[in-house]
Amino acid sequence: MATEQITLYTAKVCPWAQRVELAFKETNAKITRYEIDLGNKPSWYPKVNPVTKVPAVAYGGPIVSPEEPSPESVKIAESAVLLEFAADLYPHLLPPSPAERARARFVIDAAATKAIPAFFEFVFRGPGDPEALVTAFDAFQQLLPPEGFAVGNWSIADAAIAPFIGRLELALRNDVGKYAPEDGKKVYAELFQSPRFARLQKYWQDVSSRESWKSTFDEAHILERLRPRLARA
Amino acid sequence: MATEQITLYTAKVCPWAQRVELAFKETNAKITRYEIDLGNKPSWYPKVNPVTKVPAVAYGGPIVSPEEPSPESVKIAESAVLLEFAADLYPHLLPPSPAERARARFVIDAAATKAIPAFFEFVFRGPGDPEALVTAFDAFQQLLPPEGFAVGNWSIADAAIAPFIGRLELALRNDVGKYAPEDGKKVYAELFQSPRFARLQKYWQDVSSRESWKSTFDEAHILERLRPRLARA
Repeated sequence: MATEQITLYTAKVCPWAQRVELAFKETNAKITRYEIDLGNKPSWYPKVNPVTKVPAVAYGGPIVSPEEPSPESVKIAESAVLLEFAADLYPHLLPPSPAERARARFVIDAAATKAIPAFFEFVFRGPGDPEALVTAFDAFQQLLPPEGFAVGNWSIADAAIAPFIGRLELALRNDVGKYAPEDGKKVYAELFQSPRFARLQKYWQDVSSRESWKSTFDEAHILERLRPRLARA
Repeated sequence: MATEQITLYTAKVCPWAQRVELAFKETNAKITRYEIDLGNKPSWYPKVNPVTKVPAVAYGGPIVSPEEPSPESVKIAESAVLLEFAADLYPHLLPPSPAERARARFVIDAAATKAIPAFFEFVFRGPGDPEALVTAFDAFQQLLPPEGFAVGNWSIADAAIAPFIGRLELALRNDVGKYAPEDGKKVYAELFQSPRFARLQKYWQDVSSRESWKSTFDEAHILERLRPRLARA
């Protein structure tokens, strides 16, 4: 549906950026993907996003090299804004009815205010309370319908949470994180193997078996960058 | 455009709830407004919103008393979700183009993560740094176009920020808040009278002179409730 060019500035390691990659992968959009090295951001990148974060999009304007962004393109930042932007261009990324669209946005809001902060607190800040993490993901699991994705068909609600579940699973499975050494395997078993979280596990299997996930999640690359950052004192 | 009934559970004192009232006031929607006493919430209210916050909407289902919500209506909570819901029902509440819609959502996101937290910190938590508040509202001012509303025509971006500017103006003008006693009049003069904030002042004049604002902002009612809550120690 989009007729304008779309250049997505992103970084494999960044869960916020992966949200937007996932959404566009679920469309037939031809986007130009440009990897930003977050440890060494290019000097021209403030022309795309003054606060130099990823993800950001340059939309429209002439076809140019991503490294020479045109002043004529519209620059759009913030992953939640970009998810809605993707759904405006590709309406199948949200359900059709206002009530179902509201449900999708409620799930996005709940993820942003509960499960995602709990993930950062446990894995990046630590040593935190495993029960707080488990409780937050239990609340997320309870938002899921009996089967399918967050609101039935795959939507930007799934794009919004998936990068965080994926990084949580990866970190716990590899015992990488600021949590107490004994907690990694314990919480991994609880969330990703125990019957209590069967619904979350099925959901995660459904999300992570899609091509959109497999083509945007570079496990080795992410793990290599998380290890030094999350080394215990 | 909406053919289903809409019951809005709200509270005059709550800025999050006023966001949604503002949005619907800018439409020709016939909604049923029900005031929730936040200090004494009705026992049936969890049927509408399990976490008992306002705003919340019961959408569709049979026409019933607001005090006897039907299990057949869809219940929708969270003000940001409800703003998008209103714009799905009444598309003029957002600009037509995807890029402009993204701009509106960027302003909403910036308000939610910068200006609004700065307002709560300064007025409700205090005694805070007046400069942090002024800086946050300067950043907001810089998001505004040279004239008109946040993205040209009035939109849900204006609904998202207005209740907080209104309460900030009201609190400072009446020297009500947890800030240091000498800071109220000083910050009021800076934000609402000085040339540095001329753009914000014009914006605020434009927003607050609309019927949607005047019919949803009960100054005396809000001030009466803020005074005891914000009394200095």
